[in-house]
Amino acid sequence: MSNIAVIGSGSWGTALGMVLADNGHSVRMWARRAEQIEEINTHKTNKRYLPNILLPENIHGYTEVNEAIKDTDIVVLAVPVKAIREETKKLLKTATKPLTIIHVSKGIEPGTQKRVSEMIEEEAVGFTTLKSVVALSGPSHAEEVSLRQPTTVTVSSLDSNAAMLAQDLFMNQSFRVYTHTDLVGVELGGALKNIIALVCGVTNGLGYGDNTKAAIMTRGLAEMTRIGVKLGADPLTFSGLSGLGDLIVTCTSVHSRNWRAGQMIGQGLSLDEVLEQMGMAVEGVRTTQAAYELAKVHQVEMPITAAIYKVLFNGVKPQEAAEELMGRVKKHEEEQLKDR
Amino acid sequence: MSNIAVIGSGSWGTALGMVLADNGHSVRMWARRAEQIEEINTHKTNKRYLPNILLPENIHGYTEVNEAIKDTDIVVLAVPVKAIREETKKLLKTATKPLTIIHVSKGIEPGTQKRVSEMIEEEAVGFTTLKSVVALSGPSHAEEVSLRQPTTVTVSSLDSNAAMLAQDLFMNQSFRVYTHTDLVGVELGGALKNIIALVCGVTNGLGYGDNTKAAIMTRGLAEMTRIGVKLGADPLTFSGLSGLGDLIVTCTSVHSRNWRAGQMIGQGLSLDEVLEQMGMAVEGVRTTQAAYELAKVHQVEMPITAAIYKVLFNGVKPQEAAEELMGRVKKHEEEQLKDR
Repeated sequence: MSNIAVIGSGSWGTALGMVLADNGHSVRMWARRAEQIEEINTHKTNKRYLPNILLPENIHGYTEVNEAIKDTDIVVLAVPVKAIREETKKLLKTATKPLTIIHVSKGIEPGTQKRVSEMIEEEAVGFTTLKSVVALSGPSHAEEVSLRQPTTVTVSSLDSNAAMLAQDLFMNQSFRVYTHTDLVGVELGGALKNIIALVCGVTNGLGYGDNTKAAIMTRGLAEMTRIGVKLGADPLTFSGLSGLGDLIVTCTSVHSRNWRAGQMIGQGLSLDEVLEQMGMAVEGVRTTQAAYELAKVHQVEMPITAAIYKVLFNGVKPQEAAEELMGRVKKHEEEQLKDR
Repeated sequence: MSNIAVIGSGSWGTALGMVLADNGHSVRMWARRAEQIEEINTHKTNKRYLPNILLPENIHGYTEVNEAIKDTDIVVLAVPVKAIREETKKLLKTATKPLTIIHVSKGIEPGTQKRVSEMIEEEAVGFTTLKSVVALSGPSHAEEVSLRQPTTVTVSSLDSNAAMLAQDLFMNQSFRVYTHTDLVGVELGGALKNIIALVCGVTNGLGYGDNTKAAIMTRGLAEMTRIGVKLGADPLTFSGLSGLGDLIVTCTSVHSRNWRAGQMIGQGLSLDEVLEQMGMAVEGVRTTQAAYELAKVHQVEMPITAAIYKVLFNGVKPQEAAEELMGRVKKHEEEQLKDR
């Protein structure tokens, strides 16, 4: 059994900490807010993020990163993509031995268009305290994982031993972990699906039904795959757990923040209003910006991404964008998937 | 504008008749029950199948097939798969000129393992009144189509002119029709997805959540694709509207009969009890039998199909089958999709 640090105590970090604790590991959660850590240590709860859940005894909270990572070289990094660079730097500066970082965040960085593992590798330049980076992704609502509902995820790394280590740490009866060699595809699948979830939320907010949702998801997966292939991913990865699986869970579930944010936009709220109401990271918004940039740079057609980009950032009305996307009537259209 | 007969006045036949009527065609609905036809003609409603919907003026009902197909050579065949052979024979016997039959049923025949277009072709042997067969499939709940919700479907035929004719007849602003050349894949996608929908219903009935559903759908699409490729389909077809799209709409929507039937089974009802309660065809049940046969004949691994087969026909408890499917813990499993 190992000591494992979990940096970030939101719903996903906490749920993953529970899986590790269930497997007998000693889990050291870090959060910035002292009251949250005290709640975790005193009451074994984290009510803001996982109401009605009692944490296992072998989870302990810390407000200092150096305490959280004491006596461990394995770190689960569970912070919003926006915070990845800063937290990575802090970790690597504090660490006394080389760390295996298992990151569980889903997004692409606007401006640089980097994946999360690339961001971590960039921040590690000049440090000797990064051993390996693993990405964990897949169809997994934190709420259901915390209830030990059967869940499957994928882990991927350029270091196959690190991927297998992550598999061993997390695998149990209700949390099933597959390894995958296509790091690019696994990270892109998890990130890009949030864009499609935003759009499905928007069409729902506009009053469209399940037929529309299914069309958006089908064409959405095709455009995720198109850009993925351009960036070196295996197209089949997008038909797997971190692509299709995660797309399904995010687009068809009430638990999804990105879907809910999209729904509010469809109902007429502005992006600023939505982000204020959510109070948590909505990764799809920044990823939309990054994917829009990627589509331009690599000259890949991404009509769904372009439509939501215009709604989020250019003031186009959701109804207009949706009609343009769904309504254009063209005779003798063929269903083209070959370009994937 | 054409005269078009619709054979079968259930929810799907009626919704498609409405699309054709919206496009200005004169639609001749056939049903066996005289009261239903009278309701259609007198009240312009078909309440048992589409409550709260008013039918367009240019839809008329008939109880005799020869009246319904008078003055037309285009027939939409919208009956349960079980009735396809009998209705086809009746149609071809009655017809005075060669018919283009657009079938909209989703299933495979147990025993013969034939697709619907193959069943129609077989019944046409000895007749000179079949011109072409077209399959129409895709993510399309009848209820939403009848409300003019944006919907996309695929048409496919060995006769590309017939496919384009069907596209022209149905295409409008809210009902978007794509042509596809892979008839085998289009028919199999629509048929096999009902099996996965049954299983998603079962896991829901057992109390499992969205993570499990997403895993089942992802692995389900992989097994649909595997058997499809063996039968000559293009694997990409299963990532399209009649595969993935229809899978999504059937597995994640309250409208789906197959999903609802599965849910009742997960809650502990027997197959007989469920079929009695449904009162409408649950195509997935017979298709499970046919797909189970196909997997044996072609030696293709279809673990999800095998699991639901055992529950439906061999008395295995849903909980047991689900645990076997989801729970087997194996170290160092890789996410294998290559075998697609």
